[in-house]
Amino acid sequence: MSLKVTKQEEDYSKWYHDIVLKAELADYSPVKGCMVIRPNGYAIWEKIQQTLDRMIKETGHQNAYFPLFIPESFLKKEKEHVEGFAPECAVVTHGGGKLLEEPLVVRPTSETIMYHMYAKWIQSYRDLPLKLNQWANVVRWEKRTRLFLRTTEFLWQEGHTAHATRKEAEEETHLMLDVYRRFAEDYLALPVLTGRKTAAERFAGAVETLCIEAMMQDKKGLQAGTSHLLGQNFAKAFDVKFQNEKGEWDYVWQTSWGVSSRLVGALIMAHSDDQGLVLPPKIAPTQIVIVPIYKTDDEKAAVLAFANKIGTDLRSRFSVHLDDREQFKPGYKYNHWEQQGVPLRLEIGPRDVASQHLMTARRTGGSKTPIPAGEQLAATIEKTFAEIQQLIFEKAKAFREVNTHRPQNEAEFREQLDAKGGFYCIDWCGDPELERKISDETKATIRLIPFDQPTALDLCLFSGKKAIHQVIWGRAY
Amino acid sequence: MSLKVTKQEEDYSKWYHDIVLKAELADYSPVKGCMVIRPNGYAIWEKIQQTLDRMIKETGHQNAYFPLFIPESFLKKEKEHVEGFAPECAVVTHGGGKLLEEPLVVRPTSETIMYHMYAKWIQSYRDLPLKLNQWANVVRWEKRTRLFLRTTEFLWQEGHTAHATRKEAEEETHLMLDVYRRFAEDYLALPVLTGRKTAAERFAGAVETLCIEAMMQDKKGLQAGTSHLLGQNFAKAFDVKFQNEKGEWDYVWQTSWGVSSRLVGALIMAHSDDQGLVLPPKIAPTQIVIVPIYKTDDEKAAVLAFANKIGTDLRSRFSVHLDDREQFKPGYKYNHWEQQGVPLRLEIGPRDVASQHLMTARRTGGSKTPIPAGEQLAATIEKTFAEIQQLIFEKAKAFREVNTHRPQNEAEFREQLDAKGGFYCIDWCGDPELERKISDETKATIRLIPFDQPTALDLCLFSGKKAIHQVIWGRAY
Repeated sequence: MSLKVTKQEEDYSKWYHDIVLKAELADYSPVKGCMVIRPNGYAIWEKIQQTLDRMIKETGHQNAYFPLFIPESFLKKEKEHVEGFAPECAVVTHGGGKLLEEPLVVRPTSETIMYHMYAKWIQSYRDLPLKLNQWANVVRWEKRTRLFLRTTEFLWQEGHTAHATRKEAEEETHLMLDVYRRFAEDYLALPVLTGRKTAAERFAGAVETLCIEAMMQDKKGLQAGTSHLLGQNFAKAFDVKFQNEKGEWDYVWQTSWGVSSRLVGALIMAHSDDQGLVLPPKIAPTQIVIVPIYKTDDEKAAVLAFANKIGTDLRSRFSVHLDDREQFKPGYKYNHWEQQGVPLRLEIGPRDVASQHLMTARRTGGSKTPIPAGEQLAATIEKTFAEIQQLIFEKAKAFREVNTHRPQNEAEFREQLDAKGGFYCIDWCGDPELERKISDETKATIRLIPFDQPTALDLCLFSGKKAIHQVIWGRAY
Repeated sequence: MSLKVTKQEEDYSKWYHDIVLKAELADYSPVKGCMVIRPNGYAIWEKIQQTLDRMIKETGHQNAYFPLFIPESFLKKEKEHVEGFAPECAVVTHGGGKLLEEPLVVRPTSETIMYHMYAKWIQSYRDLPLKLNQWANVVRWEKRTRLFLRTTEFLWQEGHTAHATRKEAEEETHLMLDVYRRFAEDYLALPVLTGRKTAAERFAGAVETLCIEAMMQDKKGLQAGTSHLLGQNFAKAFDVKFQNEKGEWDYVWQTSWGVSSRLVGALIMAHSDDQGLVLPPKIAPTQIVIVPIYKTDDEKAAVLAFANKIGTDLRSRFSVHLDDREQFKPGYKYNHWEQQGVPLRLEIGPRDVASQHLMTARRTGGSKTPIPAGEQLAATIEKTFAEIQQLIFEKAKAFREVNTHRPQNEAEFREQLDAKGGFYCIDWCGDPELERKISDETKATIRLIPFDQPTALDLCLFSGKKAIHQVIWGRAY
C-alpha cells in the first residue's frame, strides 16, 4: 500500500480518512454506516478500555452486562428519552422465523433495560449506591457517518448509578467527568474543556449533562465524553424506589455516563500530521520499533543479535516491535512506522553495536539522538516518553488556545466563525429560542458552559440582555 | 437474601438456578431468552476473557471488530451455513424509522461478514496467514433457554483465520483446540475430552468440527468449545483468493473457532455443591476473603489492624476481600462467602493476632488449618491454591471416569442411559441414518469421536457391522 497521505491543508476530511485507511485502523463495511475496526485500530481501543476500565473500577464501579435488545414499550416510558432516541433506532421485528409480538429495539443506550432491573434489585437504602458499568456495542441509525467519529454501530462503556440523594448523584456525575478529563488529558494527551450542556444539547431524559470538549486540528469541536444527572426522571418511569433509614419510600437519584470508540477518531484528528498517525506513548499499542541496519552477512548477524537483546530487555516495560523484514530497506521501514504512529524508533547499525549505543528518532520530530544501551536505557526511554507525552498535550493545548476567540459583537463572531472556525467565548443570556436561531443560521452550537467562568460578565453578545454565563460556541463533529 | 440452596440430588436444575441467582451471577431479563449478567458473574467472564485473550494473542492472533449486522443476502451465500442458521436469526427490518431495502440479520456468528472483508484484504500469499479474533455478542433465537448455558444473546470470542494450504488450516484448528483444552483444564479445572464431531453435529458450513466436551454433575455432556476446519467452502462463496508464489490464484483455506459465556455455566455445573458456588482459585474473581472475629472494642482494633495489614500484603499477588461489615456475625459471613465460591477464607481473631497466625478454611472442605502470618504467607497460599486447583480438577475427572460406561450391547446401553446417564464408549460403524435413529429414540447424541482411540475395535454395538472408530454417546446440554 502506498505510504502517501493527502495533506491536511489540502483536504482535512480526506487526510483523516487516508490516515485511518492507510494505517489500517478501520475499513468501510458492506453494512451502511457500520465500520470494521481492524487490528491496529482495535489495539488502540483495547488500550483505552484497559486504562479506563481500571479507572472506573478504582472509583468503586463494577462491570455487568445487559441485553442488546430492549422491548419497544420500555423506550417509551420516559417521554423525552423516546423522543430523542426513537428516530435513531434499529428495530428487530422477526425472530426465529416468526413475527415478534412486540418489536425489539437494538439498544441505542441502556437506561431503560437497566433501570427495569434496578427496580427489581433495589429495595432499601442498603442496596445503594448501585454503581454499574457496561462495555457494549450500541446502534444509532445515523444519516451521515464517518469512520470512528460517527457510525451506526459503535463500541462504548456506559456507567449507570443509583443513589439515595440528589447530592450524591451530582457528586457522581462530577467524579466521572473528572475521570474522563484525566483520562483524555493524561493518556490521550487531549486537552479538554469541562462544563455543562445547555438544555438543547442535553441527553434525552437528563436533568443536566456534563461534558468534556476537545478541539480537532480543523478547529472543530468534538464532544469526547458525557456524564448525565438523570435526577428522578427514569426512577419514576421505571419505579426504582427504596426505603430509607426511616422506613419511607423514595425514588432513587440516577446518573449515566459514557465514552465511545469515537475517542479513537479524536486521537487521530487531534495529533496526527501529514506523515500519518501520531500516538501518545501512553496509548500507543506499539511504543517502540527497532529497525536494524546492515549490509554484509556479518553485520547482519551482529546487528540482529544486539537488536534482539535490546528488544528482550525492553519488553518487560514497553511494547516493542523488531522489524527484521528482509524485503524492505530501512528508509521504507522508517516511513512505514511513522505512518503507524509508533512514538519512538530505535535504529541499530554496525557502529551502534560497536559503541553499544542506539540512535533514537521520535515520531514527533527533532534531531535523532544516540543513547547508551546500558542499564539506564529503560529509564532514559521512560523519560523520553514522558517528554513526548507532554509535548503532544501542550501542542494540542496551545492550538486550542490560539484558536479560541473573543469577538466584540455578533457580526465579528459570524465573520470569524466562517473565516477561521475555532471556539468562541461568549457572554450569553441563556435564551433557548435565540440559541436555536443562531445554531440554525451558523451551524455552530453552544459546545458547553465551562465550569471555569470569568468573575464578571458583559451583556449578552447576541441579545444585549443580561448575560447569565459565558459559553463556548463553535462548529463540531 | 436466604442462603439456602436447593439440594443437587433433589432437583438438579433448580439447584443450578438457585446458585446462579443466589450468588448473584445472573438474572432473568424482560427480553425472552436473554439474561442479565450481574457483577459477580461478569467478573468470572472477565477472568475468562483476560486469560484466553492472552493465550489467543500468544498463538499469533490479533483482535478486531466487525459489524453486528449482516446483510441477509450474505448469509445465503454458503448453502449449508444458511440452512443451519437462518431459522435462529433475529432480523432487523426497520432502521431510522424506515423499512430497510434489505433486512439485516443480527450476527449469529460472523463468518459471512468477516470473509467479505477478507476477500478485500487478501490478494497475495504475503497477506497470509490472516489470523483474527473477535470478542462480541451474538444472537441465536433459542426455544429453550437456561441462564449462561443457552441464551438468545450470548458473549463469545470467534477466531477466523485464512491460510495458503489445507495442512496449515488443519494445524490451526488443532492448535486452537489445544488452547481451549489447556484453558478448560488448567484454569477452569474442567477435564475435557478432545475429538471430532460426526457430520450430523458439525458446524453449518464446516468440513470438520473439533471439540472439547465436558461432563456436568448430572452426568450430562456439555460442549465447551469448538474449532472448525472450513476448508474452501466459504472462500468459494465469498471469493477469498490469493496469488501464490508462482503467480497462480487459489482459494484460501479457513478455520473458525469459539468459546462463549456458557463456560461460566459449565464452571458452575461442574464444581459447585449444595453450599453454593465452588470456583477454582485461578478463575475466582475474589480468591481470598478475610473475616475478622472480635467481641470487645480493644479486640476489634487489634484484629482489624492485623487483618488490614494481611490484606495489604496479599493484594499484590491475590485478589483479597476483607469483610469488615459490622451488621453480620462471622458465621453468617462464612456461609455467605462459601455460597459465593471464594476458594480460601482467612479467619482472624484476637488469639491469632497474639500468635501472628491465621486460621485458613478451604471452600473445598477439610479441616481448618492455622498458618503463620510471616514472610512465607504468600508462598504458603500459592501452594494451597495449587492444591485446591488440582483437587477440583481431579474430582471432576474421577467423576467423569466413574460415569463413563462400556455397555456390551444396545439394550444395555439404552437401559444404562436411562438409569444412570453418563458417557458411553461405543464402537461405531459410522452410519449417519442409524445415528439419527438412535438420537431420535434416546435423546442422546454422539458427543465426539475422541482423538484417543483404542488400538483394536469390536463390531459396531448397534449395527453389528465393522466399526470405524470408537465414539462417545451421551445426553447433553
